[in-house]
Amino acid sequence: MVKRSSTPGPRDERGVLSARILAAAREEFAENGWAGTTIRAIARTAGVDPALVYHYFASKEALLDAATMPPLRWLDSVAKTWTAPVPELGSALLRLMLGAWADEEIGPVLRSVILTAAHEPATREKLRAIVEGSLMGLAQLGVDEHDRLVRSGLISSQIIGLAMMRYVWKIEPVASMSEDEIVPAVAPNLQHYIEGDLGPVG
Amino acid sequence: MVKRSSTPGPRDERGVLSARILAAAREEFAENGWAGTTIRAIARTAGVDPALVYHYFASKEALLDAATMPPLRWLDSVAKTWTAPVPELGSALLRLMLGAWADEEIGPVLRSVILTAAHEPATREKLRAIVEGSLMGLAQLGVDEHDRLVRSGLISSQIIGLAMMRYVWKIEPVASMSEDEIVPAVAPNLQHYIEGDLGPVG
Repeated sequence: MVKRSSTPGPRDERGVLSARILAAAREEFAENGWAGTTIRAIARTAGVDPALVYHYFASKEALLDAATMPPLRWLDSVAKTWTAPVPELGSALLRLMLGAWADEEIGPVLRSVILTAAHEPATREKLRAIVEGSLMGLAQLGVDEHDRLVRSGLISSQIIGLAMMRYVWKIEPVASMSEDEIVPAVAPNLQHYIEGDLGPVG
Repeated sequence: MVKRSSTPGPRDERGVLSARILAAAREEFAENGWAGTTIRAIARTAGVDPALVYHYFASKEALLDAATMPPLRWLDSVAKTWTAPVPELGSALLRLMLGAWADEEIGPVLRSVILTAAHEPATREKLRAIVEGSLMGLAQLGVDEHDRLVRSGLISSQIIGLAMMRYVWKIEPVASMSEDEIVPAVAPNLQHYIEGDLGPVG
């Protein structure tokens, strides 16, 4: 333990260290999955003692929960976006997602959720709820519950695929397109899922 | 080595064993990434001796190449699909992809490519070429090379996102929609990327 001084105070230091542990956890879970990740490996990546990880997070499960929990301010902005007028909803959702991936706090969480969920079924089940809650849960769409879930599922498919191409795989030229190029190209397709005729499924 | 007998002959047995090794490699690379996967682990999953893996595949790199190489008959059908009349191309591409994921030979390869590519940059670079070659390479789209790559990149984003939702994460109700429900809902969006006005980027 360092000796107390006026700055950085212990409260500040605590925030810095737990943020560093969370960043390391996101990295490790995304890379190695739930089963392949140890507290020891996370501590090593974060450059701290494993005991400090347990000081902040009671268990590996608690650490996964914390590492993959979208920041509240993002959930707030998702909720706010869904109140946009229907004809503008496609653009609004897309700009929200592009902004989130570019955000240095939210981007790594989304990345970690997507990659960790690719591993084993137990993690996927847990993280599916986060994806559904943040991308799909608030949709006021469609003529009934089934139609609503189909529409929000298809919206998610386009947004997640765009995120994979652009931020995870970084495939050009999609990775380098500006927000003002992406939105007119992709928003009409989201709008189709929001209010278009989807055929027999709708 | 087993004693030769009329059936199964050595040629047949060789095919069975190398197919089993490849299936195990797809599983291990997808789950643990390039760095986290050992020949020993692949051999254990395949239920064979590590020496046998080296008998068929010269190195871990050769094994990754073989495990993530789309079957030739699939590349052939991709090439054939791109010759469909433009107004039918969206539906044709979508049916091709849905068929490929459901195919017991091709599906596991696509799954392994997508999941392995999520791991570290070196693998991603290698596998990006496969994705580009199979999903994007043959597109005869757009007014120039940049437009062609934008359009095929956006097509890939929708197809990959749909595959993640449907086959990797299995999020309902998208995972259970029939081909005849998916196609009318999603094909118009692919058609927009194929021939629609994409705004300033086009």
